[in-house]
Amino acid sequence: MEVFYTLPENIAGNQVKLGAEEARHVIRVLRHKVGDRIQVVDGEGNEYRCVITKIGRGELRAEVMSQTRRARETVAEVTLAASITKGAKMDAMVEMATELGVSQIVPLVTMRTIARLTPARLRRFRHLTVSALKSSTRTMLPRIKPVQEFEQFLKESSYFDLRLLAYEEERRTRLREVLVASPRRVALVIGPEGGFSETEVAAAQAHGFRTFSLGPRRLRAETACIAGVALLLYELKEL
Amino acid sequence: MEVFYTLPENIAGNQVKLGAEEARHVIRVLRHKVGDRIQVVDGEGNEYRCVITKIGRGELRAEVMSQTRRARETVAEVTLAASITKGAKMDAMVEMATELGVSQIVPLVTMRTIARLTPARLRRFRHLTVSALKSSTRTMLPRIKPVQEFEQFLKESSYFDLRLLAYEEERRTRLREVLVASPRRVALVIGPEGGFSETEVAAAQAHGFRTFSLGPRRLRAETACIAGVALLLYELKEL
Repeated sequence: MEVFYTLPENIAGNQVKLGAEEARHVIRVLRHKVGDRIQVVDGEGNEYRCVITKIGRGELRAEVMSQTRRARETVAEVTLAASITKGAKMDAMVEMATELGVSQIVPLVTMRTIARLTPARLRRFRHLTVSALKSSTRTMLPRIKPVQEFEQFLKESSYFDLRLLAYEEERRTRLREVLVASPRRVALVIGPEGGFSETEVAAAQAHGFRTFSLGPRRLRAETACIAGVALLLYELKEL
Repeated sequence: MEVFYTLPENIAGNQVKLGAEEARHVIRVLRHKVGDRIQVVDGEGNEYRCVITKIGRGELRAEVMSQTRRARETVAEVTLAASITKGAKMDAMVEMATELGVSQIVPLVTMRTIARLTPARLRRFRHLTVSALKSSTRTMLPRIKPVQEFEQFLKESSYFDLRLLAYEEERRTRLREVLVASPRRVALVIGPEGGFSETEVAAAQAHGFRTFSLGPRRLRAETACIAGVALLLYELKEL
């Protein structure tokens, strides 16, 4: 199954329009013709089964036959709040986290965060979530939030009903032990290469964050993100 | 904690020698001096706490004070048998799987595997496992096995006492349901972008492989590898 993405504003009534890039892919690569059925998602949870009605220059129109909500999406909303890291590995992390099913990614600046996010890199992340949405056949596009200071993130964390932080110094407590039944909004915090400072962990705990261990082997920040997201979604029975 | 790597043949009695690259790192970057304590692993499960005795041109010698076996290693041996994939993502996958704790990686050629592994790429993987071993403070270096045809891998799979295959068409069975108590040697098989053919899955099942689902969202091959390894090690209480 192939899923195409279009902006919500390209859907009006039962008419769907694909942007130039998507249309080109449907026509040139997949060689679809008028009358063929395609599946289109708007990144806001809507999935449309459509029939192609018109193929023009870099444009494709289709008519909606049926529509579903939030297909293949998680029930719980998982926010991955992760320290910014350097290089292409954070790109791969953003893609993998999107495929796995996170709802939001918050790039964090913590005490030991060295890397910075340029506006171009932030745009790139948004672009990567679109391609990962399509490859994973998701229907909701994860939001890449603006960069936030860790302290500020903690201040706004009352939004979540389960707050988790992977902590290197936490030796015994496994993820299973810090869960609650059927949380709706979960925050998973992953620190930078150098880890969180004790002060930061204490501050997080004061805001209701529970610390847990990702095992005795030291994980690079991006690996911790992906392993953490996978385990969390698994425990929530979303994986 | 920083861990240095040396080849087993560089350890004789209680004398440890570091190769040029590692020695340079200890001396130039970390600015260690004679008399300082360092930790050296040989990738075969031995970890040595040593005291630096001599610093020469691109060479470092140390004396072993104490020695431990298999620190921070998993009890079960996990073999990740994964279809070869294209580009840098497989590099990242090899690194992440090493950090998480796999014992072996077998690059597979399946029916729908498109990418190929050059000897240079295979060497690169071996190099990446060394850097990931150090960053993760592991003591066992995972083996990167030669490329194997899927069929051949199945034929030799009696070595494992738990055989798992992540299958896209498997909708209901979760990993938890296909486990056995305390396996010693586990094989986790992950297919290519296009998935396994029905014939391949049937052949695997005939060899005792149990299929399970990694959730309703389609994961790219590398993401499936990392999520699969993380979940498996989690269930084995190794993470």
